[in-house]
Amino acid sequence: MSSHSAPVPFCIRWGILATGSIAETFAKDLLVDPASRGVTDVSHSLVAVASSRSSEIASRFINKVGAPSSCIAYGSYDALVADPRVDVVYIASPHSHHYQNAMLGLQAGKHVLCEKPLTVTARQAHHLVETARARERFLMEAMWTRFLPISAQIRQEVQNGAIGPVIRIFADNSIGTNALKELKDSYLTKKELAGGALLDLGVYPIHWIMQTLAPRPDPRPSSILSATTPLLGAGVDESTTILMTFPVTSPSPVSVQAVASSSLRAMADPDGHTPVVRIQGDRGEIQIYGHSWCPSKYRIIKRVQQFGIIGEAEEYEYHVPGGAHGLCFEADEVARCVRHERHESAVMSWTESLTVIEILDAVRRAHGLFFSEIVESDEYPVTMPAKMN
Amino acid sequence: MSSHSAPVPFCIRWGILATGSIAETFAKDLLVDPASRGVTDVSHSLVAVASSRSSEIASRFINKVGAPSSCIAYGSYDALVADPRVDVVYIASPHSHHYQNAMLGLQAGKHVLCEKPLTVTARQAHHLVETARARERFLMEAMWTRFLPISAQIRQEVQNGAIGPVIRIFADNSIGTNALKELKDSYLTKKELAGGALLDLGVYPIHWIMQTLAPRPDPRPSSILSATTPLLGAGVDESTTILMTFPVTSPSPVSVQAVASSSLRAMADPDGHTPVVRIQGDRGEIQIYGHSWCPSKYRIIKRVQQFGIIGEAEEYEYHVPGGAHGLCFEADEVARCVRHERHESAVMSWTESLTVIEILDAVRRAHGLFFSEIVESDEYPVTMPAKMN
Repeated sequence: MSSHSAPVPFCIRWGILATGSIAETFAKDLLVDPASRGVTDVSHSLVAVASSRSSEIASRFINKVGAPSSCIAYGSYDALVADPRVDVVYIASPHSHHYQNAMLGLQAGKHVLCEKPLTVTARQAHHLVETARARERFLMEAMWTRFLPISAQIRQEVQNGAIGPVIRIFADNSIGTNALKELKDSYLTKKELAGGALLDLGVYPIHWIMQTLAPRPDPRPSSILSATTPLLGAGVDESTTILMTFPVTSPSPVSVQAVASSSLRAMADPDGHTPVVRIQGDRGEIQIYGHSWCPSKYRIIKRVQQFGIIGEAEEYEYHVPGGAHGLCFEADEVARCVRHERHESAVMSWTESLTVIEILDAVRRAHGLFFSEIVESDEYPVTMPAKMN
Repeated sequence: MSSHSAPVPFCIRWGILATGSIAETFAKDLLVDPASRGVTDVSHSLVAVASSRSSEIASRFINKVGAPSSCIAYGSYDALVADPRVDVVYIASPHSHHYQNAMLGLQAGKHVLCEKPLTVTARQAHHLVETARARERFLMEAMWTRFLPISAQIRQEVQNGAIGPVIRIFADNSIGTNALKELKDSYLTKKELAGGALLDLGVYPIHWIMQTLAPRPDPRPSSILSATTPLLGAGVDESTTILMTFPVTSPSPVSVQAVASSSLRAMADPDGHTPVVRIQGDRGEIQIYGHSWCPSKYRIIKRVQQFGIIGEAEEYEYHVPGGAHGLCFEADEVARCVRHERHESAVMSWTESLTVIEILDAVRRAHGLFFSEIVESDEYPVTMPAKMN
């Protein structure tokens, strides 16, 4: 019997692990009707939320985000990953816990979307990827910026040659705070939670560099140099600048120089009109405005190939529709991958996530920026101290 | 006998060594009436010009710039520095020749203003400084940007605390050329003339970093890291990015991270609206527009010290008066120093020039960017090959 009614969207069932502010934003985005962003092939169901401390905290979270009454509140992560109704676990715990929590989900046979950075060390990340591969589960770093339509459009412009081969990139994510005062209680300033500018803010500029250079046979930089300023008495960095070189590869005529900077103290865009990412090509430049994690605008400037003559700019603005924050697009990607039994996203590949964490590792090693043995351990399971969890 | 007539300005007599385009611009600036820029204490007289090849070339130069008929054309540098009417020699030869030519002037007992970079190697620069000190002659690197009123104003803003202590600087000088085509015949692409992006363009961003961090007890960076892209087949760099750290020193609460980039291929300001230098402080930012060697505008953005809140910008434009290019201001500084028997300028000190050349040395060494033995030699006198001169 033929039918002309629209096909039912593939519905993926989410369990949210941890109840901090990013979990809240993600949950709210899950509850936005996908049709508001033109998505009809997949949909999302929030079926469970877990707090490691108590089910009351999870209950309050469920009420706060307005999840359906069928959503179950768990007082432990073990209970969440044991729930057979959960298809995919979203890991929203602090950096320090990503490895243990993501592994918990994978070992329980769940698909996993894990907040950035995927793990604290590259070894941990490799173990997660090996586990996802062996168990045939989906695993992805929640680098949501990559899935924003504006990011896809920028990558497309680059790949279409709008600015010619990329030759230099400056990318910054710096939030201009008095960290010791304004962020006193934040995970950002906590060594035991693997805080600091590099791991939390620095991943965005590095990912901007990676995604605008892709596709490359090997995404790895040929050199990684860096400068770090410690956050006084906190054991984490307050500012880190990374200078990378990427080898010549078609169509690049030369090696690419790229600067990824991040700072709790300095500010990427102090006036609302300063580009936070600049992708420079042989025939022009793309300037990205707004927050580097969620750009609101980009400009393409086609270069006049003659010394001293400046080019014309075209401007594109973008706002996330449907009242969503923008995390919804990565959720759609997870649903599509799971639907098609893909364990790795082509947009946020394992190789690129691993490369980013290897860069973070190299920078931390160069400056003796270490976390505790337990946070950097790649053993599993390891019980984390209760106060951290 | 008291008089109320204006005092006669102190007149300094210039000899110009070499006749390239920067010499031409400098000569024209010397011939602009200082009163047009409000200067009445000093004046300039162009008394001699020398070409190493022939006095005819020097004659043509004198006619072209419109120098007075009393200006003498020499066909050798030795003749120029032997002329007793010359107080100060302006060295406008290629980088490769600065050391030999500046030493020639000093040894002849002349004061010397030498084009940037002061020399090709730090050892050469140290020898020049020692010679100037021993012979009690004035010596200065012709970093004219430092003497532009807009630069003085920017330094004053920083020193007055308009943006708080400086914490991060991005400075770029990149001219966006197809170097192998557009600059085929330029000294910029010639290894034998000590060309390349770093030595010619990179000195400006480094000097911006130095001058906005000054005064410091020790101007030297605590770390110098860099990435270089070679210009294919030319033996010089087409792009160099330097990442430096400067140690904590009052009033800076933290170490300063600074990026100095330069490129023949990439472009600092592709649209006429992109800042080429950004000086970031704890309480705001100064953005500099135009060419980093001769800015036309700067904006001060006072930061609202609260996460996510952007600040208000104030804008200042500047144009060199009197139809001059802007080299006139450094000439005035030379005249004032000579008048007051100072051998070193406080604005462009020997220590800072030496620091800049030590940075250039460190970067070149890190990448095996060497010039010929004769160009890097600190012996004097050394006869340079005729074709280079």
